[in-house]
Amino acid sequence: MYFLRYQQDVNQPVEYGWMERNEIYRIHGDPFGSYRRGEYVASIDHVILHAPVIPSKVIGIGKNYYTRESDYSKGRAELPTFFFKPPSAIIGPETPIVLPAMSEEVEFAAELAVIIGRPCRNVTPNDALQFVFGYTCANDIGALDIQRKDGGAVTRSKSFDTFLPLGPWIAQRVDPVDLLLISNVNGQIRQMSSSRDMRFSVVQFISYLSSVMTLMPGDVLLTGTPVGAGLLQEGDYVEVDIEGVGSLRNPVISQQN
Amino acid sequence: MYFLRYQQDVNQPVEYGWMERNEIYRIHGDPFGSYRRGEYVASIDHVILHAPVIPSKVIGIGKNYYTRESDYSKGRAELPTFFFKPPSAIIGPETPIVLPAMSEEVEFAAELAVIIGRPCRNVTPNDALQFVFGYTCANDIGALDIQRKDGGAVTRSKSFDTFLPLGPWIAQRVDPVDLLLISNVNGQIRQMSSSRDMRFSVVQFISYLSSVMTLMPGDVLLTGTPVGAGLLQEGDYVEVDIEGVGSLRNPVISQQN
Repeated sequence: MYFLRYQQDVNQPVEYGWMERNEIYRIHGDPFGSYRRGEYVASIDHVILHAPVIPSKVIGIGKNYYTRESDYSKGRAELPTFFFKPPSAIIGPETPIVLPAMSEEVEFAAELAVIIGRPCRNVTPNDALQFVFGYTCANDIGALDIQRKDGGAVTRSKSFDTFLPLGPWIAQRVDPVDLLLISNVNGQIRQMSSSRDMRFSVVQFISYLSSVMTLMPGDVLLTGTPVGAGLLQEGDYVEVDIEGVGSLRNPVISQQN
Repeated sequence: MYFLRYQQDVNQPVEYGWMERNEIYRIHGDPFGSYRRGEYVASIDHVILHAPVIPSKVIGIGKNYYTRESDYSKGRAELPTFFFKPPSAIIGPETPIVLPAMSEEVEFAAELAVIIGRPCRNVTPNDALQFVFGYTCANDIGALDIQRKDGGAVTRSKSFDTFLPLGPWIAQRVDPVDLLLISNVNGQIRQMSSSRDMRFSVVQFISYLSSVMTLMPGDVLLTGTPVGAGLLQEGDYVEVDIEGVGSLRNPVISQQN
């Protein structure tokens, strides 16, 4: 099943829906709690899609693909390193990524995003998938020059508004073990890898994070990006494709001041 | 005016209220939007207080007091460095701070917390106070040994559940320029300073953050801690007092596994 958030037009509220064969239906209730499937709304081409979830937190993992070789000159950590991105950075499909005036090096990074389904604390890797609601595509945008200015810290560089495209919807019943992940910019393929190349798998990452903090329904985990992430320029069109999940596309514009 | 979140007893919902002379009254509507003051509920001693806000993000500033000398061996940054704490770390007054089994060095840190009142993006220091809803007390708990293990990164060390006591309420009409901030553990004073000793003032910090990201109603900014922060042990009782705001008290317990 596919869950999404849509608007019938800009004057209507944003609502949760579910989708089958590109047709959208209403959801009554809370997708993360009790809900029932409702009546037909419109076909996917006749609504505005929003990011499919508003999380209480977004947690990313650093250097998580064996195929991102440049990351490995630094050696290999025993434990995942993680970081937060603010919910204010989230945008939906087709919404522009805005290049901040203060950066000259904004990088895209295609990632599989895990959406948590219920409160999760101290779970084992074996039990972790029981706490997953579904998966979506993410583009973990960061400003490399700002990261260098901040001595390598990613907090500021990854926190700008529009720096977290999510969507187009949340796919359930997906096995995260070997998903093909592809990104392209203006139609040229830039990344192509499989979630099988993750150093810390989805279930290991959930288990590790849950040993520190309670993961809440709707929370988003970004599972890292493979080799090939690169810079964006005004006018680019960047796409993240994940097998069994969907395609997330966003244009790129410059900040107007 | 003082805003708080309370429960009449454990079986009742958590609601927003306002307080005058230790008496609590209901609030109808959204304290960050449109609301009206409602009827009398109970006196402060007859309700359970919760953290006064559920933010979409919590942003802390590193090394922000001139009086925390140990931080200055490292030199003085030109710009604030900031970090996120997850909302899942928030607890209210009198709720236990839980020492995680995996740490031996958990530190308290008394801080003035700023609560944002309306969406705030690219504001000047001069305009910043217009976006402030009020102030509360915070205790920015961190695990120093975990911070060392993580090469100085604070993401994991500051993210454990219960590592952000907030409260007891949000005070409005407070001038943040020269507030006395005191902490004590088991009655012994540990920190005593004034917000005048901040390197980056409240308005500078708001302006800086808003140049990166949109601050949302309810968002919490932690403004740093003065010299004297120290370790906590099981059985301790830690208190943060801020002039014109209130007193936030929390017991300390060990994780039960």
